[in-house]
Amino acid sequence: MSDPTFAARPTLEEVAARAGVSRATASRVVNGSDGVRAPLVERVRAAVDELGYVPNQAARTLVTRRNGAVAVVVAEPETRFFADPFFAQQVRGISKELTAHDNQLVLLLTEGVADYERVGRYLAGGHVDGALIFSLHDDDSLPVMARKAGVATVIGGRPGWSDAEPGPTTLYVDCDNRGGARDAVRHLLNLGRRRIAHIAGPLDQTASIDRLDGFRDMLPHIDPGLIAEGDFTPEGGSLAMELLLERFPDLDAVFAASDMMASGALRVLRQRGLRVPQDVAVIGFDDIVSVAEWTDPPLTTIRQDIEEMGRMMARLLLRALEPSATPGAVSALTPIITPTQLVVRASA
Amino acid sequence: MSDPTFAARPTLEEVAARAGVSRATASRVVNGSDGVRAPLVERVRAAVDELGYVPNQAARTLVTRRNGAVAVVVAEPETRFFADPFFAQQVRGISKELTAHDNQLVLLLTEGVADYERVGRYLAGGHVDGALIFSLHDDDSLPVMARKAGVATVIGGRPGWSDAEPGPTTLYVDCDNRGGARDAVRHLLNLGRRRIAHIAGPLDQTASIDRLDGFRDMLPHIDPGLIAEGDFTPEGGSLAMELLLERFPDLDAVFAASDMMASGALRVLRQRGLRVPQDVAVIGFDDIVSVAEWTDPPLTTIRQDIEEMGRMMARLLLRALEPSATPGAVSALTPIITPTQLVVRASA
Repeated sequence: MSDPTFAARPTLEEVAARAGVSRATASRVVNGSDGVRAPLVERVRAAVDELGYVPNQAARTLVTRRNGAVAVVVAEPETRFFADPFFAQQVRGISKELTAHDNQLVLLLTEGVADYERVGRYLAGGHVDGALIFSLHDDDSLPVMARKAGVATVIGGRPGWSDAEPGPTTLYVDCDNRGGARDAVRHLLNLGRRRIAHIAGPLDQTASIDRLDGFRDMLPHIDPGLIAEGDFTPEGGSLAMELLLERFPDLDAVFAASDMMASGALRVLRQRGLRVPQDVAVIGFDDIVSVAEWTDPPLTTIRQDIEEMGRMMARLLLRALEPSATPGAVSALTPIITPTQLVVRASA
Repeated sequence: MSDPTFAARPTLEEVAARAGVSRATASRVVNGSDGVRAPLVERVRAAVDELGYVPNQAARTLVTRRNGAVAVVVAEPETRFFADPFFAQQVRGISKELTAHDNQLVLLLTEGVADYERVGRYLAGGHVDGALIFSLHDDDSLPVMARKAGVATVIGGRPGWSDAEPGPTTLYVDCDNRGGARDAVRHLLNLGRRRIAHIAGPLDQTASIDRLDGFRDMLPHIDPGLIAEGDFTPEGGSLAMELLLERFPDLDAVFAASDMMASGALRVLRQRGLRVPQDVAVIGFDDIVSVAEWTDPPLTTIRQDIEEMGRMMARLLLRALEPSATPGAVSALTPIITPTQLVVRASA
């Protein structure tokens, strides 16, 4: 094998010369047009194989408008993307579904919001057919950029604007965040807990708001001091737990809006010598198995099928990309809300 | 915000109409050409802003041959990519360096080798300027595909073919695997260990072969039974450790070719009631902090600066992409071998 760095790509002219046909004939064969005699087709195909010719997709894209590639954009810096197993699990489902349909997963990583304009340029550049965007925050410009770029988009998680604006449906996949949160609190109430605190996710994300709303549905007269905002990380969960214990040393339960935050809360409770669940019952959200099964004690949580939601996002997008898909064909092109499920382990 | 799914992208014609100029004039302004009067430039720019016009990069790419985007391809299924913190750490360095130069990191994920042809098509499609490829195995077709695609390439880890083939230099970044392995064994010998085993990485990867060679440099007459092949995962490290203990119940040290495998070996030793380091000294390779500092006992290891090696790969590729870069200018375009460093913690 010689140098892969500076080698030139074989051209269509070289294919034509090797096959002994005109460039036009070679072009027709490569682009799958009819009207070329079988023996010539054979010779061109042999030349393509021998030279390792690959058609220039950028040129072809201008004609067909289809790359067989889908971008995944996570509205978080890459450090957080790799630190939170939620994202890997969602990407896993997306990867399986796209691969099953021979579409390339193109993950666009960033260091932060300052890079979104560059992501927008890439989306607009004709390099992908659509985009799956998740972990959106209120003021994220990514959906607007995807719209300007003219690429079909499916959002992971209910977008913040969908309630306010009428018009054609924004495609998204989410779980029943509010219903799941209600189930969590109901479980704690059934256990006889009476001073229940909530560690919310960042309140510029709809998943956090919906889970907080579910918490409040069950406890409408709750003291607002029993609610502390975290950031979906274990460290954020620890800080929120400390704050809550300072305000209410007698709290007997906490519902954290993610397993990662619950694991941070467990650490603080252990440090304070508080027993889980005897002194304080703890319940999480997500059921990230690599977290929830390995905490001490193992975590009772609200399960959402993260990998399957990734698959659904990819499936919805591929359907939207089919030539027959039109805004009128709404039946197969509507947002999807998946159910959640209480998983009882040892922490509550 | 209205529907991002089906909105059409504003065209250059619309920009021209809004600005009250010809399409040719609008095109010259958008593409940064000279010879347009300042007031007209202003009007076109205002129209671009108002309409949210984004130039079609696919069309532009055909002319400039530069996307401002670099692919990262890891020759592992996405499940392993996300399971091994080595990859996240290398991608971190790449991401920082590419972002500093306003290049988009495009991570191409696969489910396995069956998807490499599709990756090759994407690389050939004019969507990226270059590719960073790592974790190559002997028979991986990715470098050939990158070469056929005509994109500049930098390999993470010494490629298996570079010793055998003369010709222009293949660009790669690696650490001194062989020297690091020698340091590991020297440390164990200095501790008075006399029956030293080795858990090798997969022997279709040069990093594994080079580390094994370093091990053998120090112990040229070693019983081959003291060498077991793992797969760079904790599970593989556990299996290899069990095999080695079965063969040599009296072994007093083990050098594992990665921290992940060393963590698996530690688990087996603990299960067998063997004390580390008193009964068996253990040393790893990589110094992945999230692993080596948290094992029980904390892991003595050979450090390579994984994040910095990612930065170096990106830097080398960006240099190769500069218009002035030619195969003749080898001084700045040669493979890079970084030093390793023994980090002594508690396990050896």
